[in-house]
Amino acid sequence: MMQALTVDPSGMRYRADYLRPLPLPGQALIRLLVGGICTTDLEVVKGYAGFQGVLGHEFAGLVVECEDEQWIGRRVVGGINLGCGRCAVCLSEGPEHCPDRTVLGIIGHEGAFADYLTLPVANLLAVPDELPDEAAVFVEPLAAALRIREQIVVRPSDQVAVVGPGRLGTLIAQVLALSGTQVIVLGRRRESLELIEQLGLAADLVDGPVDRSFDLVVEATGNEAGLAHSLRLLRPQGTLVLKSTFAGRATVDLSRIVVDEIRIVGSRCGPFAPALRLLGSGAIRVQEMIEGQYRLQDGADAFEHASRPGVRKILLRP
Amino acid sequence: MMQALTVDPSGMRYRADYLRPLPLPGQALIRLLVGGICTTDLEVVKGYAGFQGVLGHEFAGLVVECEDEQWIGRRVVGGINLGCGRCAVCLSEGPEHCPDRTVLGIIGHEGAFADYLTLPVANLLAVPDELPDEAAVFVEPLAAALRIREQIVVRPSDQVAVVGPGRLGTLIAQVLALSGTQVIVLGRRRESLELIEQLGLAADLVDGPVDRSFDLVVEATGNEAGLAHSLRLLRPQGTLVLKSTFAGRATVDLSRIVVDEIRIVGSRCGPFAPALRLLGSGAIRVQEMIEGQYRLQDGADAFEHASRPGVRKILLRP
Repeated sequence: MMQALTVDPSGMRYRADYLRPLPLPGQALIRLLVGGICTTDLEVVKGYAGFQGVLGHEFAGLVVECEDEQWIGRRVVGGINLGCGRCAVCLSEGPEHCPDRTVLGIIGHEGAFADYLTLPVANLLAVPDELPDEAAVFVEPLAAALRIREQIVVRPSDQVAVVGPGRLGTLIAQVLALSGTQVIVLGRRRESLELIEQLGLAADLVDGPVDRSFDLVVEATGNEAGLAHSLRLLRPQGTLVLKSTFAGRATVDLSRIVVDEIRIVGSRCGPFAPALRLLGSGAIRVQEMIEGQYRLQDGADAFEHASRPGVRKILLRP
Repeated sequence: MMQALTVDPSGMRYRADYLRPLPLPGQALIRLLVGGICTTDLEVVKGYAGFQGVLGHEFAGLVVECEDEQWIGRRVVGGINLGCGRCAVCLSEGPEHCPDRTVLGIIGHEGAFADYLTLPVANLLAVPDELPDEAAVFVEPLAAALRIREQIVVRPSDQVAVVGPGRLGTLIAQVLALSGTQVIVLGRRRESLELIEQLGLAADLVDGPVDRSFDLVVEATGNEAGLAHSLRLLRPQGTLVLKSTFAGRATVDLSRIVVDEIRIVGSRCGPFAPALRLLGSGAIRVQEMIEGQYRLQDGADAFEHASRPGVRKILLRP
């Protein structure tokens, strides 16, 4: 038995007596060191994707059981998509778009907010000794931010706006600024921009900047108002990256997209190894993003804290 | 005085006594030979873009007045966007995305469905003698179809669907099939697919093909149902081209776009010279697309005919 934060149609629950997961062949059993709460977790609690079971997909952990003994005792992070391993997508690109995939704590695979989780060994990356758990836990959202650079060319001379100064927006802005690109983070409230400015990035209220002036806008709010702001800021032939999961449908001014020949790029999971390198080099600052740490047994408080407007990262420990 | 088909808030009107336009410096006065009715014209009549004045942007004509005398007496087609000619967009890319542009028969410039129209000489292309007026008038929509190939890479091995077997969809399908790419045109009614099959292209009912199987889907209906079909047909990481102008806003499943990392590309006006070459070589068949020809004075009948479901191209002559 183990403790776990689970979700079912009645909502989120702390369970002290949840069944410990059994690793399948090729999988490792991992003991949780630290987990991070992401906006997707909040959506999953509200019923997104209809998931039931253990919550959570951001984690750093310790391998305790594994067929390949060299992994045992190593600190790891891990890719959250589990593909079938046999289809054309898995064989050519990896598990992220496998039609039969499960996803840690989101689709059909017990998540990370528990004493133990399982993942295929192929999904694991060892965490360098010098990187603390509280930094390593940011590898998954940082990888998601890096995904943008795998999908489109961001030029150093581009004018870039990130709409939404939250957890993911803060990482995205840091990633896009790495090549000298001018990046401004836009939010609805002054308070929510303080951390951004503390990190040395430009920030402004979302109503401030000039309309139709940005080459690239990253939508990181996941709500319809943020999307409308993002479209307004884009220049003709500009690119809009949709980085936050939207709960449900939204209305969009499609005429604007056609007439101004806007490009929209949906963006989800990204590469872990480059994210680990950037965390290791200190190029991306995450320490300042941690706002609170809770025990699993106080998971209800942790989720309440994580859902406050403008809140930074909330971590969970066994 | 001249005859013209105009639009104002009370709707479309035939005028026998409309003021003949005066060419500005650098512009040519062009006598209409033949015009083509496009879905955008139908939207303009309904109030799209709030345009008032002479309708129409698809035309072939004869230059009758011009400072540069070598143009006089030549048959021409012409780019429909008139830029300011001074801004960074005009100087680097041309007038299509000039923030102060006017557009023939759509935004602030009298259109082509009249005895005479004006355009800057810089917008004109001479029509080769061997190309009949009834083919040359297709250059504008064919250029719009070719625009897709300027924006994205369409690979010969891609699986491509065009949703909407109308005037523009038929041209798009022909253009995309030119490189040996497998293209299927999808419509809601069997009758609307007959011309497509007559042109040697594959066609099916929109509910027929397998979900999530296409690399590229071109939305050429301009309605919300067509958009939903298009998204359903796309594979993960596929590309959706929005080619038809949408009247107003539409609701979209943005979650699908993010999770499956869909790319959306808005697409509008395209290059005239390549379109003229393809019409000249006979690679694109347009003769079969002509369904009716009307005099300007019968404009009301022509527009009624052009707005019937599944109708092909309706031409107008002085």
